[in-house]
Amino acid sequence: MGKVYLVGAGPGDPELITLKAIKILRKADVVIYDRLVDTKILKYARNARELIYVGKAHGEAYKQDEINKIMVEKAKQYNIIVRLKNGDPIIFGRGGEECEILKEAGIEYEIIPGITSAIAAPEYAGIPITHRNYSSSIAIVTGHKKEDKPPNIQDVFKTVDTVVILMGISTIGEITKQAINAGLSPETPVAIIENATTKKQRTTLTTLQQAPQDIKKYNIKPPAVIVIGKIVELHKKLAWYKEKYQP
Amino acid sequence: MGKVYLVGAGPGDPELITLKAIKILRKADVVIYDRLVDTKILKYARNARELIYVGKAHGEAYKQDEINKIMVEKAKQYNIIVRLKNGDPIIFGRGGEECEILKEAGIEYEIIPGITSAIAAPEYAGIPITHRNYSSSIAIVTGHKKEDKPPNIQDVFKTVDTVVILMGISTIGEITKQAINAGLSPETPVAIIENATTKKQRTTLTTLQQAPQDIKKYNIKPPAVIVIGKIVELHKKLAWYKEKYQP
Repeated sequence: MGKVYLVGAGPGDPELITLKAIKILRKADVVIYDRLVDTKILKYARNARELIYVGKAHGEAYKQDEINKIMVEKAKQYNIIVRLKNGDPIIFGRGGEECEILKEAGIEYEIIPGITSAIAAPEYAGIPITHRNYSSSIAIVTGHKKEDKPPNIQDVFKTVDTVVILMGISTIGEITKQAINAGLSPETPVAIIENATTKKQRTTLTTLQQAPQDIKKYNIKPPAVIVIGKIVELHKKLAWYKEKYQP
Repeated sequence: MGKVYLVGAGPGDPELITLKAIKILRKADVVIYDRLVDTKILKYARNARELIYVGKAHGEAYKQDEINKIMVEKAKQYNIIVRLKNGDPIIFGRGGEECEILKEAGIEYEIIPGITSAIAAPEYAGIPITHRNYSSSIAIVTGHKKEDKPPNIQDVFKTVDTVVILMGISTIGEITKQAINAGLSPETPVAIIENATTKKQRTTLTTLQQAPQDIKKYNIKPPAVIVIGKIVELHKKLAWYKEKYQP
């Protein structure tokens, strides 16, 4: 029986992968990888007999079962199985569920963390999500819960300084409504960072009130990270990444 | 005038550094580094003329001014200045303040994210901090605010499923009191992970009620990450890292 490595590929820039991830990819017999993983990263897997694409569109819950089956099947067939995910394998990446499946099947596993876009995207937009004078608590939430429903995060806005939302573009109307209902000013600054850390990075500054319209107006598309809170104001001062992409 | 790179060294295991960080370290003229950075990581800086240790003990606010001065001074002297920090350079690492100083001095900078122990520590303890069935929101907070005071995070416990606390060992009494005052059961599971991702990793399972005594009883010391929430229960099932260290 082989061992499965749940590996984070990082947020986009293929150099934002860890040395540990590269080393295990070089030894991998098979790589089971998600959508958005850069082909430069797959090239490390030069000894792999199989590269299996399991890129799932959002909300296709049935597909997770298929991925689980493939992992277990390949673990019986090979020694080193890499399950490669964007960002970090656990942060809203369903890695926890995959660990449970492997545990139940008696298969050894290891987690190799990756840089999550929840942290890298604001950093690449010049927004220091923690800062002594502005933000001493952050929440990371998903814009989608089970069955594609928006989450109930209204109370989160009441208690933390900065909220970072992954996969929130399609539920932005509900999210901003919850934030305003929680008592945040409609003028609270919002940053939306598309394709963070890549050549296609684009940061759009808006407000809670304007965000739903601006997403349409500027044709903002996933993958994107949404940052809500006063700290967003620092973008204007601290932005350092040269964004050249014009969609 | 040189360029300053604010670089994350990762959570402990020297292989959990990014390729991008390694590449810039190889080119660095000077490295200004914190306490706890592994010497294996410093070895990448083979062309550096100076390796400057600025490891500050907790709460020494005056030292931040000195670090700022060194950064600005070295930026005048060299081309490639690496400011190397544990974990991620921004997450409670005062990187945001350093960016502000550099901006004001007219010095170019870039942020290279690192794996934060806030995420890696629970993962190495088999605790998937996000999980569809247990935890759809996480908060990352610091156990210390300005002037070494504990933070007021009581309300955070009311609104997110999982709370991850960095630098909270010395304020654990206050933190657990706030959590219980917020309405969490005194039996809520707590995991404390010392020296995560290193050979000295040790995970202690306790409860809100027991945590302050257990920290004394088991002689738990920083650096340590505290995880509070129902998800901690999964540690028993999903732990995969072989903890061999006996302090």
